[in-house]
Amino acid sequence: MGDAKRNTSSSSSGSDEEIQAQVAKAVEEVKELQDKAASFVSRAATDEQSLRQRAQSLDSSIRRLRSQLYSLLSSKALDPKLAEKLEEDLQRATCVLVDGEAASFLPGKSQGGGFLRMFLGPINVRSSSKDIQLKVKEEYNAYRDRTALLFLIFPATLLILRSWIWDGCLPAFPVQAYQAWLLFLYTGLALRENILRVNGSDIRPWWIYHHYCAMFMALVSLTWEIKGQPNCSQKQRGVQLFLQWAMMQGVAMLLQNRYQRQRLYTRIALGKAKRMDVVWGETAGVDGQLWILCPILFVLQGFEAYVGIQLLTTAFIGVVSEWQTLMVKSRFKAKMKRSKSKQDL
Amino acid sequence: MGDAKRNTSSSSSGSDEEIQAQVAKAVEEVKELQDKAASFVSRAATDEQSLRQRAQSLDSSIRRLRSQLYSLLSSKALDPKLAEKLEEDLQRATCVLVDGEAASFLPGKSQGGGFLRMFLGPINVRSSSKDIQLKVKEEYNAYRDRTALLFLIFPATLLILRSWIWDGCLPAFPVQAYQAWLLFLYTGLALRENILRVNGSDIRPWWIYHHYCAMFMALVSLTWEIKGQPNCSQKQRGVQLFLQWAMMQGVAMLLQNRYQRQRLYTRIALGKAKRMDVVWGETAGVDGQLWILCPILFVLQGFEAYVGIQLLTTAFIGVVSEWQTLMVKSRFKAKMKRSKSKQDL
Repeated sequence: MGDAKRNTSSSSSGSDEEIQAQVAKAVEEVKELQDKAASFVSRAATDEQSLRQRAQSLDSSIRRLRSQLYSLLSSKALDPKLAEKLEEDLQRATCVLVDGEAASFLPGKSQGGGFLRMFLGPINVRSSSKDIQLKVKEEYNAYRDRTALLFLIFPATLLILRSWIWDGCLPAFPVQAYQAWLLFLYTGLALRENILRVNGSDIRPWWIYHHYCAMFMALVSLTWEIKGQPNCSQKQRGVQLFLQWAMMQGVAMLLQNRYQRQRLYTRIALGKAKRMDVVWGETAGVDGQLWILCPILFVLQGFEAYVGIQLLTTAFIGVVSEWQTLMVKSRFKAKMKRSKSKQDL
Repeated sequence: MGDAKRNTSSSSSGSDEEIQAQVAKAVEEVKELQDKAASFVSRAATDEQSLRQRAQSLDSSIRRLRSQLYSLLSSKALDPKLAEKLEEDLQRATCVLVDGEAASFLPGKSQGGGFLRMFLGPINVRSSSKDIQLKVKEEYNAYRDRTALLFLIFPATLLILRSWIWDGCLPAFPVQAYQAWLLFLYTGLALRENILRVNGSDIRPWWIYHHYCAMFMALVSLTWEIKGQPNCSQKQRGVQLFLQWAMMQGVAMLLQNRYQRQRLYTRIALGKAKRMDVVWGETAGVDGQLWILCPILFVLQGFEAYVGIQLLTTAFIGVVSEWQTLMVKSRFKAKMKRSKSKQDL
């Protein structure tokens, strides 16, 4: 028994030493890792800074050369053929600079930073890897396609259920859920577009602003009162028109997405756009699709005008009918008084 | 004149060569930059990957050592004093690992990624610089303070204007603007908290979830109809209670922010929390402030119960009064019929 005890204690002191050594080793390794990480972070920051400076100076020197080229060409001091060749060289260099690996070191567009800052705080959403940037762009396009489909299906379902199940009277909850979804959708789009812009996409500012407007529209639509029976179909005329508009808009969005993307592929192939760009308002090229898209957009705008007039009329009728109700009430009261006084007599 | 012409052409061909050389140089430099940027990005990715692996393996080996220590201690195979010392060493190593420069290479918490992905897409919001991470945390705290103040001022202003200017009847627009602000506020908080979590903060999941609930609450409040005259003060009783609750909540938030932060400083000083943490639900320490905070929280909860009962009562009364109106109408119609038949007689 004495032996066994000594054995345990000796094995215990053995494991003592062993675990002590292991802990010391772990502590040492953590310190090493800490040093390595710190030196990596500071080295990366220095390298990045120098790449950033180099990219910026090259960008401005290309700009300078280009304007020099134009002034030489306009003062006829340069052979036009040579000028064209040099212009092409500069164009290609710009493409490499703004669309290649170095692009992430060019200063980002500060526009839209306010919107992101408002929602996210001062976090950096700029990725230094071109792969991730392109993945973000791909995902944005996929998101637009997915949501355009939902944009069509959601109101269509509501309208179908309205006539099949709900007896011509939409319940408040599904409509409000749809409006909340719209608000979420537009907020997501605006956030993603600002992120794309920070990551070097040349997305047009008006395209982002029009989603801010859409966010506001969705917010306002949430405050609508969804009135029920009686006279439901008359009271819900506005909501019904809104859902019909949304369905058309869904179709237009699907076509527009396709059109914009094909236009962009052409522009990227021509070297006129970068791989990070997403939307172009230009109308040259891919003419075929415009024969479908344009009429739909015009019909949509006509329908929007119609809805606007309807809503104005409704507002006007509302005021008039309220006034008429008051008139009827006062006449009715007068009549009641008369009949009462007759009875009293 | 011939001389002048020759001069121009020679100077022009001189500028030809000059600009040609400059363009060639720019093109060359852009290529160089492109190569440098590509090699930097790939090198940084490799280094980061190896740091990540190292950090993860160290993290798991510390965990293993700690559990080994406990099992040795519980089987009494280890001197308690030595165990305590080793435990302290491991604790310090953990602190360095999870809160130092290496922390950004530990795998982030995937929780909450879904929420961010939903709004922002697949962009990376994790910063590899500890400085930026701490700045994000500071900004989150500042945001909470700012908004807590607005949380108090906004409804207070509405209630004051209600009795001073609006004659006891809140107009719909300012109330709905306040509700929209609430929705924006909670969305911003939830997004920032998820970003903090991705950046290594140990923020509690329930704290984030309760802001998802608050987002939903703000969304629902936007769908309320703000009724006007007549009987405005009775119809707006719910809105009024909501605003009163919000004022109290504002005071509680200000106190709570102060309390949570002081608690956290203590915990960080004790090495029990990391610098990136923001909220702790624990109640030990800083007892003094609890004497103010606790009663306010209990009063708030009591008030919430009162509001709940009031709303239930209102809903009940609403149903009853609608029913009563129907009864009155039918009685009135019956009376009219009788008086008419009397007149006819």
